[in-house]
Amino acid sequence: MSPRGTRDRMIDSAIVLMRERGAAAVSIDAVLTHSGAPRGSVYHHFPGGRDELILAAGRRAANVVSGLISQAAEAGDARAAVERIAAFWKKVLVAGGFRAGCPIVALAVDARADLPEAEAVVREEFERWQGLLREAIEAGGVQTAEADELAALVLAAIEGAVVLCRGKRSVEPLDVVTRRLVALLPAR
Amino acid sequence: MSPRGTRDRMIDSAIVLMRERGAAAVSIDAVLTHSGAPRGSVYHHFPGGRDELILAAGRRAANVVSGLISQAAEAGDARAAVERIAAFWKKVLVAGGFRAGCPIVALAVDARADLPEAEAVVREEFERWQGLLREAIEAGGVQTAEADELAALVLAAIEGAVVLCRGKRSVEPLDVVTRRLVALLPAR
Repeated sequence: MSPRGTRDRMIDSAIVLMRERGAAAVSIDAVLTHSGAPRGSVYHHFPGGRDELILAAGRRAANVVSGLISQAAEAGDARAAVERIAAFWKKVLVAGGFRAGCPIVALAVDARADLPEAEAVVREEFERWQGLLREAIEAGGVQTAEADELAALVLAAIEGAVVLCRGKRSVEPLDVVTRRLVALLPAR
Repeated sequence: MSPRGTRDRMIDSAIVLMRERGAAAVSIDAVLTHSGAPRGSVYHHFPGGRDELILAAGRRAANVVSGLISQAAEAGDARAAVERIAAFWKKVLVAGGFRAGCPIVALAVDARADLPEAEAVVREEFERWQGLLREAIEAGGVQTAEADELAALVLAAIEGAVVLCRGKRSVEPLDVVTRRLVALLPAR
């Protein structure tokens, strides 16, 4: 296995643990067990140890969501962007037996006390998502200030709906919220 | 100090720890340290130990939110209900230096693996809040099915906004989301 492969697997394992158990559950031991990576590789790949690993996992997971939004934003279709994000989360929720949520929410909610650098990652990723959503909404003919508020509502409602889905063990809250949000957004 | 006082203090300490650090951080030791309660009192007040304490804390914290919604719902004023909930969360966020969030979200997000009974508490409390919101919206002349969808959107967006506020260390997401939600709800 190449060094690159080991690093990747450790980051992916950290993402799974963060989604399912929260950032506090991401320990070096848990990641080694989950990924099967050799202990000796930890400080080779992550000289900053656990903190570096958690932050890398947060960034990588956030990039997936940004990619989804970007594609729809480039098409100037805010409704498609919201439906695409909802479809992504439904897949994650069902595949994970409703135990898996947003790793950036996990960072926002329980890593603060342990990991001050997480604050910057959380703030930057939330702002990036909101900015991409705003661009998609603006492309539909909505003025910037209005589009920014709608983007904040979309982001908050989707993140909240993912938590409600986990609580209810059902994708229904996400379906309902998506339908109501789409009705508020400009058609392409 | 009366036995009742000790039990109350332990529950309140568990709520603070759950809000700030997540449900996984609520250990008997942490609660004893935070509350100053004597160790010998734990199994007197909580024969079910840590699990019973966490569930009692979740229920008590949820009752505060239900009380807020109920008062506004009885007045048939959905807009006031949303503004009241937002004001409550802003106070909690500012008072806790943006480290404190919703304890029911904490239960939904990171207690699952440790505490299966938390599922029922989370589901029941989310459903109770949504039901109270739906009643307030119906009282404004909106039909039941529509009111239920709007209630789900309100609940998701407020819970999501609280997480965004923690991430941004600012009440701005909650202000924006509240403004957009109020515009979707019937005036009294």
